[in-house]
Amino acid sequence: MAASKCTRLTVALSRHLLDSVDCVLFDCDGVIWRGDQAIPGAPEVISSLKKNGKRVFFVTNNSTKTRQMYADKLDKLGFEATADEVFGTAYCSAVYLKNVCKIDGKVYLIGSNAMRQELEDVGIRPLGVGPDPVSGVQKDWADVPLDKEVQAVLVGFDEHFSYMKLNRALQYLCNPDCQFVGTNTDTRLPLEGGKAVPGTGCLLRAVETAAQRQAQVVGKPSSFMFECVTNQFGLDPEKCLMVGDRLDTDIMLGSNCGLKTLLTLTGVSTVEEADANLKSKCPLQQKMVPDYYIDSIADILPALQA
Amino acid sequence: MAASKCTRLTVALSRHLLDSVDCVLFDCDGVIWRGDQAIPGAPEVISSLKKNGKRVFFVTNNSTKTRQMYADKLDKLGFEATADEVFGTAYCSAVYLKNVCKIDGKVYLIGSNAMRQELEDVGIRPLGVGPDPVSGVQKDWADVPLDKEVQAVLVGFDEHFSYMKLNRALQYLCNPDCQFVGTNTDTRLPLEGGKAVPGTGCLLRAVETAAQRQAQVVGKPSSFMFECVTNQFGLDPEKCLMVGDRLDTDIMLGSNCGLKTLLTLTGVSTVEEADANLKSKCPLQQKMVPDYYIDSIADILPALQA
Repeated sequence: MAASKCTRLTVALSRHLLDSVDCVLFDCDGVIWRGDQAIPGAPEVISSLKKNGKRVFFVTNNSTKTRQMYADKLDKLGFEATADEVFGTAYCSAVYLKNVCKIDGKVYLIGSNAMRQELEDVGIRPLGVGPDPVSGVQKDWADVPLDKEVQAVLVGFDEHFSYMKLNRALQYLCNPDCQFVGTNTDTRLPLEGGKAVPGTGCLLRAVETAAQRQAQVVGKPSSFMFECVTNQFGLDPEKCLMVGDRLDTDIMLGSNCGLKTLLTLTGVSTVEEADANLKSKCPLQQKMVPDYYIDSIADILPALQA
Repeated sequence: MAASKCTRLTVALSRHLLDSVDCVLFDCDGVIWRGDQAIPGAPEVISSLKKNGKRVFFVTNNSTKTRQMYADKLDKLGFEATADEVFGTAYCSAVYLKNVCKIDGKVYLIGSNAMRQELEDVGIRPLGVGPDPVSGVQKDWADVPLDKEVQAVLVGFDEHFSYMKLNRALQYLCNPDCQFVGTNTDTRLPLEGGKAVPGTGCLLRAVETAAQRQAQVVGKPSSFMFECVTNQFGLDPEKCLMVGDRLDTDIMLGSNCGLKTLLTLTGVSTVEEADANLKSKCPLQQKMVPDYYIDSIADILPALQA
């Protein structure tokens, strides 16, 4: 294997790399699909990996879908995948609240119906999904009725985010026993054509600023995302490859957990950014250097089919 | 005068201090009133200062009222005051956009009707006030119609803050020529009984996170708030006293502008916090040490009436 980092993955290196792992974790958007279109060749990559006896998992920070919704989307786009191979932050946050925070009651949720469903599936009762427009004056806002059974505030992506939701979260979080969890800190959701809309990181930052507390973050690069997979499937980190399009989430997760890392250039980050991190002396930036990079995940197909 | 900082203001020291200044700037909430109640004795302090030939100004980060609305409130609570003595961030932001940013067109405003009115009064056309609930899907959000005449985004307090407002601000701010201004960074609005609701700082932080840009901030401790007064009234900073209840806004403004500073203990900050700043070696914390402190602004009355 090449000792240097940030190396272009040739066919020969692909063979070496794939021989050295028995599990591949994929980020989704920008890696195996973009929006509603599969990256050409990506479905064949997944099938070939499985035919070659590799375990495959899908690890995404996007909190707007349940595992089953992801399985349905994968199926629709031609991927061979099952719901138990999907680790999204809606699901992983539910697992985190249940197993790490030991929540057995209610959660005030800034998030989607998908998050509500994943929480309910582990026996947690979420409050707060849907629009919550403002009414009354400041005094009323400070006195909003609080549910005493709420043990945590969970912040994920919520298109109905509003001042009142921010205020409710603050009122719950004024109780120091109320736990505070965020799905992820991505600041933008990238769309086709260089466009983007605000991501969960913006909403979480607003709540953190109001509460004067920092949330525990479940999503990449928090190692919990990998622990969530390995707790169920017993993986050896050194025999895992993390494939992603973002240096600050996917590649950092791999570095944090001791996985091999591959940056694919069909998404957010560029090889120039990776090279700049490589040249920097900052330990944090060094964690955002992939072992390898590749133009598209489809480029490993020849190594798999040989 | 006492050379040491953070000294309790005795009657004798009050006389010295008042003799040394010809202008007193007051923060409002927590200083001359709390909520809808005047601090007992505060109206008499203002009248006596004026009788003694001092100029008086009211300098507040709260962006929810126009100068006239403040003048009406002051009058109702028994203060002798006129609208041109009031410098709130709704008014000062309008002046800033007009005179510093040189805006002559439209502004996308996350804020109140009071802010809209102050902007209109200087000839700027604001868009965006009122509810803006979400509709459509991600693609629609990225493609929201933008008004090409918008030259700046202004973020102030907005109880109708929503994901769509955050998104609109992001879409405008993707244009690097679009200027970005915030009224203030206060993270909470304190209410009676130790309660609080989220302040403008939370909304501004959300927009900054989405836009990956930092706003120019008008409110205290930015020296613009003092410049805005002195540009109109030609004050000598050394002959001005800033009276406030917050170390991080009022006292810091005074330090930034070379004013004398007095912390009053009827609001947010405590003398213990001021002492801790005094003992710290951090230059930023040193700026949050007042020259003097006093239990209530009413305690300077004897010095004025003698």
